[in-house]
Amino acid sequence: MRVAVYRENGLSSFSCEALMPGISFFFEPKSVAVIGASNKEGKFGYYLLRNLLTLGYKGRVYAVNVKGGCVQGLKAYRSILEVPDEVDVAIVVVPADRVPQVARECAEKGVRGLVVVSSGFKEAGEEGKRLERKLVEVARKAGMRVIGPNTTGILNTSNMFTTSFVPLEGLRRGGLSFIAQTGLFAGATLSWMLTTQPFGVAKVCGLGNKCDVSEWEALEYLGEDEETKVIAAYLESVSDGRRFLEAARKATARKPVIVLKAGRTEAGARAALTHTGSLAGDDRVFSAACRQAGVVRASSMGEMFSIAKGFLMQPLPEGPRVAVVSMTGAGGVLASDAVSTAGLEVAELSEETRRRIGRVMPSWARVGLFVDIEPLYEAVGAECYEVALREVLQDPGVDACMVILLCMGGWTMPLIEERRLRRSFLEPPRESGKPIVVYVHGDKESSELAASRLESMGVPAYGSIEECTRVLEAMYFYSRYLRRHKL
Amino acid sequence: MRVAVYRENGLSSFSCEALMPGISFFFEPKSVAVIGASNKEGKFGYYLLRNLLTLGYKGRVYAVNVKGGCVQGLKAYRSILEVPDEVDVAIVVVPADRVPQVARECAEKGVRGLVVVSSGFKEAGEEGKRLERKLVEVARKAGMRVIGPNTTGILNTSNMFTTSFVPLEGLRRGGLSFIAQTGLFAGATLSWMLTTQPFGVAKVCGLGNKCDVSEWEALEYLGEDEETKVIAAYLESVSDGRRFLEAARKATARKPVIVLKAGRTEAGARAALTHTGSLAGDDRVFSAACRQAGVVRASSMGEMFSIAKGFLMQPLPEGPRVAVVSMTGAGGVLASDAVSTAGLEVAELSEETRRRIGRVMPSWARVGLFVDIEPLYEAVGAECYEVALREVLQDPGVDACMVILLCMGGWTMPLIEERRLRRSFLEPPRESGKPIVVYVHGDKESSELAASRLESMGVPAYGSIEECTRVLEAMYFYSRYLRRHKL
Repeated sequence: MRVAVYRENGLSSFSCEALMPGISFFFEPKSVAVIGASNKEGKFGYYLLRNLLTLGYKGRVYAVNVKGGCVQGLKAYRSILEVPDEVDVAIVVVPADRVPQVARECAEKGVRGLVVVSSGFKEAGEEGKRLERKLVEVARKAGMRVIGPNTTGILNTSNMFTTSFVPLEGLRRGGLSFIAQTGLFAGATLSWMLTTQPFGVAKVCGLGNKCDVSEWEALEYLGEDEETKVIAAYLESVSDGRRFLEAARKATARKPVIVLKAGRTEAGARAALTHTGSLAGDDRVFSAACRQAGVVRASSMGEMFSIAKGFLMQPLPEGPRVAVVSMTGAGGVLASDAVSTAGLEVAELSEETRRRIGRVMPSWARVGLFVDIEPLYEAVGAECYEVALREVLQDPGVDACMVILLCMGGWTMPLIEERRLRRSFLEPPRESGKPIVVYVHGDKESSELAASRLESMGVPAYGSIEECTRVLEAMYFYSRYLRRHKL
Repeated sequence: MRVAVYRENGLSSFSCEALMPGISFFFEPKSVAVIGASNKEGKFGYYLLRNLLTLGYKGRVYAVNVKGGCVQGLKAYRSILEVPDEVDVAIVVVPADRVPQVARECAEKGVRGLVVVSSGFKEAGEEGKRLERKLVEVARKAGMRVIGPNTTGILNTSNMFTTSFVPLEGLRRGGLSFIAQTGLFAGATLSWMLTTQPFGVAKVCGLGNKCDVSEWEALEYLGEDEETKVIAAYLESVSDGRRFLEAARKATARKPVIVLKAGRTEAGARAALTHTGSLAGDDRVFSAACRQAGVVRASSMGEMFSIAKGFLMQPLPEGPRVAVVSMTGAGGVLASDAVSTAGLEVAELSEETRRRIGRVMPSWARVGLFVDIEPLYEAVGAECYEVALREVLQDPGVDACMVILLCMGGWTMPLIEERRLRRSFLEPPRESGKPIVVYVHGDKESSELAASRLESMGVPAYGSIEECTRVLEAMYFYSRYLRRHKL
C-alpha cells in the first residue's frame, strides 16, 4: 500500500523527537510551577493558577512571579531557580520576549517539560519566529520537552491537573479525549461540551504552535491511554505525515479517531499560517491518509463532537442499511434524502415486518419506505414508537435506526415520559445490538427534556436530520474499516 | 431565457384552478366550522378547536360533531347543514372515509373553502386515492376550494385564525411566513421557532397533499401579503412548474424566498410518494428554476430558518467579501475555509485598516487574513470587538462581517454586557450599512445569554461557523439576483 508522506518544513526540524520516553509525564506531574502566576483577575496567569488550586489537583504547586510576594495565597518565587523542590512541569505565561530566558532557567533547574501558554511566537511574524527558535534550542540542549507555545495546554480529569486558563466548573470525567492545535477554541469548546454534551472528558491536549510535541505524539499517547475511549482532534497541520499515519493506525485499531483539519482552502491555509504558523499541506493527501488509517474526517467542530457522541454511546452498525422511523412524513422524506446522499441506504423492511406493523395501524395506513409513526399514534397512542422500533430493529435487513421524535408539549408529552422513552428507545436497540440515533425536534423546553432523558440513558439525541445521518455514516465507515482490516 | 416546465401527473389534474379570486379568504374567514370538534384530550379535533377559542381569533366559531351535545362550551351541531349562519371556512378532522360526504354537505351549505386536516388519502394507497379524488370532484363542482388533505393548514397571526392542532402558546407576530407541504413537521417547526428563534411569524400555510390549493398559489398570496417580509417553503413536489416560477419571480422581486425541497434522491422521492403522494420531479431542473427565479435553496430545515433570520435582521451585502473577526485563531482559520468553500471571499483588509488596528495591538501581534481579537483583548480588554469592528466595517474592501464570539463565563463576561454588545455589534454595522453575523461559542448559559442579547438588538447569532457562512452566501446570492435584474 502506498502511503502519502509529507513533512512540514521550517521550525519542526528543530524538534527534539523522542528524547524522552513519551509525553505521559505532562499529564501526571508530581510538582508544577506556574511562571507568570498572577493575582490580577483578567490575566490568564490568574485563572490558570486558580484552576490548578481549585479543581482538585493533588500535586505540589509553586507560583513564580518576578515581583515576588504572595500570589493567591502561595509564596511567589522570583525565579524557578528559587523553588526548593524538583519541578516536573513548568507552565509559562509571561510575555513572549521573556520566554527564552525563563526556559533557560527551567533547563538549569532540571524541569522535564514546559507548557508555554504565551502567544507572540511563530504565528506573529519574524521576531516571534526568532523567539520560538530560541525556545526550541534551549529545550533541545537540555532534553526538556515543550508543549505550545500559544496554547491552553493540558487537562487530565483523572488527577484534575490542568494548564488551562479557561473556566472549568462542572468538569466531568468521561471517555472523550481532545487534541487541539489551538488554545482558546479548545477552551471554549470544552466549556460548550461540559454544559451541553452528555459525555465527559478524559484528557485534553492543546498543542498550539507545536514547536516540539506534535500531533502524532499526542495521538500515540491517547491511543494507548486506557481512559480514552474516543479521540477527537482539531489540527491545522501535520508535522510528520508518516508518523501521524503510524500513530493513527495504531490508535484506530483500538478506538475511533475523528479529525477536523482546517486550512482546507487557500484562504484557510493562509489563515492557519497567521494562527499557529502552520503549513496546512495538501488537503487531498490528508483525506486519503485518513481513509487509509480508518480516521473519520469531520467538516466542522459541531460535527466532530456529534460523531464522538455516537461512538461513545452506541454500538457500531454492521452494515449501511438505516431504518427511518418518523412521527412526521416530511421528516421521513428528508431523512431518506439525507441517508442516501450520505452513501448509506434506507433499509427496505421485510414483508413480515411491514405486515406486523401494519396489523397495528389504522386500516387506511400502510408502511412505506419509512415508518410513519403518526398513524400508529392514532391507533396505539404513546406506545407508537415502541411498537415500531421493536419490529424494525428485529428485521435482519436493518443495520441501524434513525428516529424523528417530535416534542410540542400537549399530546406529545406522554411520548417522552422517562419510562416510555426507556421502553421505546433504549430497550429495543439494546436487545438488537444495533445503533440508534434520535433527531429531537420541537419546542425548546420539551425537546431539551426529551434529549436529556434520552442521553442520560445512553441514547444520543441530535438537533438535525443531517447530524444523525453524518453520525451513522461515520460509524459505518469505522465499522467497515475494522472489518476490512480484521481488527 | 429557457424555463423548465414540469407538471405533476395524477391527481393535480383535478385542480379547479383559479375558480375563486385567490386564497386570501382562507386566512381571513369571518366564520368557521370545526367538523370533528372533540372534547377528548389526545384528539386532534380537541386541540384544534381549543387553539381557535383561546388564541384570540375574533370570528364566529361553530362546532360540528355527529354526536351533537356540547363541545368545549359550544353547542355541537350534528351536521354543518344545521349551522344557522354562513360559513366561510370549514376545518375537517373526521376519518378519511367520511370526508367526501362532509364535503358534499359543505358544498350544499355554500362553504367557500375546506381545510382538510384528516390523513388517509393519496398518501395511503388506492382507497385513499379514491377518497381524495371524490373530495376534489365534489369541491370542483361546487366551486369550493380545498387546502390539504393531510395537513395542519392555516395560521394567521394578524387575526389569530388557525386550523392547527399544534400547541401555539407564545405565538409572536413577525415577518416570516412559512409554506409547508406537510402537517406535523410544520407544527413542530413552528413550536421550535416560537421557543428558540427571535423572529415572529406572519402566516403559515400547510398544504398537505395539495389536492387543490398548491404551492404556487400560496407563494403568490404571500408574495403580495404586506405582513410577510420573508417566505420560507418546505416542498415535496411542484404541481405546476411554470406557475411556480411565475409566482416565485413575482415574490422575489419584493422579498426573499427560501425553499427546502425534499425528494432530492431516489429514496427521498419514494418516501415523498408515501407521505403526501407527491412526485418529486427532477431535482436538477428544480435547482435551475430556483436559480433563475432568485429563490434561495436550503438543504435542511435548520438552514432554511437560519437564512430567514439573516434576511429578517440584516441588510443585504453588496458583494462577496467577508471580513472574519475572531476571538480564536482556530475559529478564524475554520471561517476562512468555510467562506471560501461557500464561493464567498475572505476580505483583504486595506493597509490603512491593518495599520489602524495594529496600532492598538501589542507589539508582537499583527493583523493577518482574519482579525485575531485575542491580542486586542490583551491590549484594550472588553473594548476589543468594538475597536476591530469599527475599523473593519469602514474598510471599502469589506462587504459583510462574520464574528466568532467566545463565551466562557469568567473573563469573557464583560465582553457580553448589553452595553458592550450594542457598541460592538450593533452600532458599527448599522453605521456602515453592512450585514454582520455572529457565531457564539462556549458554555450553554453565557452563550445563550449573549445570543439572546444580540438578537434582541437585531444581530443574528448562530451556533456554527458553517451556518454563518451559509447565511451570508444566501444573502449575497439574493442581493446579486436583485442587482442583475435591476430590482
